[in-house]
Amino acid sequence: MSTTSLSFPVQITVMGSGTSQGVPMIGCDCPVCRSTDPRDHRTRCSLVVATPDTTILIDTPPELRLQALRTGLKHVDAVFLTHAHADHIMGFDDLRRFCDIKKGAMPVYASPVTLASVANVFPYAFDPKNRIPGYVSVDSHPVTDSFTLGGLTITPYTLPHGRFNTYGYLFQRAGEKIFAYMNDCKDIPAPAREAIRDVNVLMIDGLRDEAHPTHLTVGEAMAIGRDVRAKHVYLTHITHQKTHAQRETELPKGVQLAYDGLSFTV
Amino acid sequence: MSTTSLSFPVQITVMGSGTSQGVPMIGCDCPVCRSTDPRDHRTRCSLVVATPDTTILIDTPPELRLQALRTGLKHVDAVFLTHAHADHIMGFDDLRRFCDIKKGAMPVYASPVTLASVANVFPYAFDPKNRIPGYVSVDSHPVTDSFTLGGLTITPYTLPHGRFNTYGYLFQRAGEKIFAYMNDCKDIPAPAREAIRDVNVLMIDGLRDEAHPTHLTVGEAMAIGRDVRAKHVYLTHITHQKTHAQRETELPKGVQLAYDGLSFTV
Repeated sequence: MSTTSLSFPVQITVMGSGTSQGVPMIGCDCPVCRSTDPRDHRTRCSLVVATPDTTILIDTPPELRLQALRTGLKHVDAVFLTHAHADHIMGFDDLRRFCDIKKGAMPVYASPVTLASVANVFPYAFDPKNRIPGYVSVDSHPVTDSFTLGGLTITPYTLPHGRFNTYGYLFQRAGEKIFAYMNDCKDIPAPAREAIRDVNVLMIDGLRDEAHPTHLTVGEAMAIGRDVRAKHVYLTHITHQKTHAQRETELPKGVQLAYDGLSFTV
Repeated sequence: MSTTSLSFPVQITVMGSGTSQGVPMIGCDCPVCRSTDPRDHRTRCSLVVATPDTTILIDTPPELRLQALRTGLKHVDAVFLTHAHADHIMGFDDLRRFCDIKKGAMPVYASPVTLASVANVFPYAFDPKNRIPGYVSVDSHPVTDSFTLGGLTITPYTLPHGRFNTYGYLFQRAGEKIFAYMNDCKDIPAPAREAIRDVNVLMIDGLRDEAHPTHLTVGEAMAIGRDVRAKHVYLTHITHQKTHAQRETELPKGVQLAYDGLSFTV
């Protein structure tokens, strides 16, 4: 790899930043759900990691189609899944458009368990006989260890999330820990913490203030950020407890809330 | 039933009117997909039928949450499903909010085959052990013949849709055929045509002009409307072939295009 390619920019775009029920919540009249601040309109979590020649989509929530329209996402080279909960996979069928556009099957990287769950929900996508235009078709990549894509080294880490586990992903560029995405978890166990130590940007589950059986609180997420010495922390998977503006006033330097449409370069 | 209740109004609201890929389509730059007319922004098909005391939602597409927010839908008494294709069921988990609001399980009416398919995708929703706040829980109503709800008599009809069948639903109020919803089909077979003859409003699959293996064309749908002597016809499940404004100029009196947010009383 040339010196030039070592320094290529990686663009991170938050497609969705909301909790499993989204914000505003259906039928909720709380101040957050009535907020007109677009940052308080949170679709379910997904994210794009784009190098100059490779675009990776993480998770396929129900609103994937509208997220893609809003952010102008027209091409996806590979999909990573964190886990198979409804709020992360029920837009999977909309990958059909990205298959049509790339004229081929979509490489999908996830744990073997997650791939099996998604194949149960969308069996036609995993059936080689369905590789016809207009249908989503998948090249399965069950991963349990580091792999490379678009000049990046990506490592999945298993994170606890109640009865399920999820994957968090660490992205490294020429040995530099540029980004870690750990969006749905109750903790980050020691091996993953060690792996992401000194990461440039950590995007992490920060659901709300009160304890939750399967999610990190804002306080717990910030403590992990300090523990791993993340240079910058973004909280995501946000519920309707506080408006973006309210929460911002409480966060220390180096910690911010993600929001739908947030985009930055690492 | 009193004379007054015989004449109660029934409000129909189109939540989504789009083909399986939605309009605009991801990554499409055609004039329809670039249209700024809100009627050309079509989420996947769903519909609300509301009597003064009962609100019925038909289908749970991926965009259900955003459809509910836009139309102000805050309460659902029962859900009907037409079939289990992705564009009609992948928002099913968002019924959790309506379960929370009604503080109970959601009655879901569909064919036995459709219910089995949905239970495979969302097994937790059909597990009586999961009847806890925050989760969708379902009271299954496999239907194959007429039933009554909210003072209406509803009859499902099996319609051909490629390798699958779908249900179309006829709504009758005190014997008057007020509304038929047949949104995803290649034909309406003779028994269903006879049943819906002289219906006040027929909303029917009218995908596009060219023949399609599993959908009615605009011409075929209009021919069925004439054959059954529907007093008014709305075409739905629309693709990105023509703008709403273009298509309107071609349709005869008594035939219109549905669009997201269309609402009328029968």
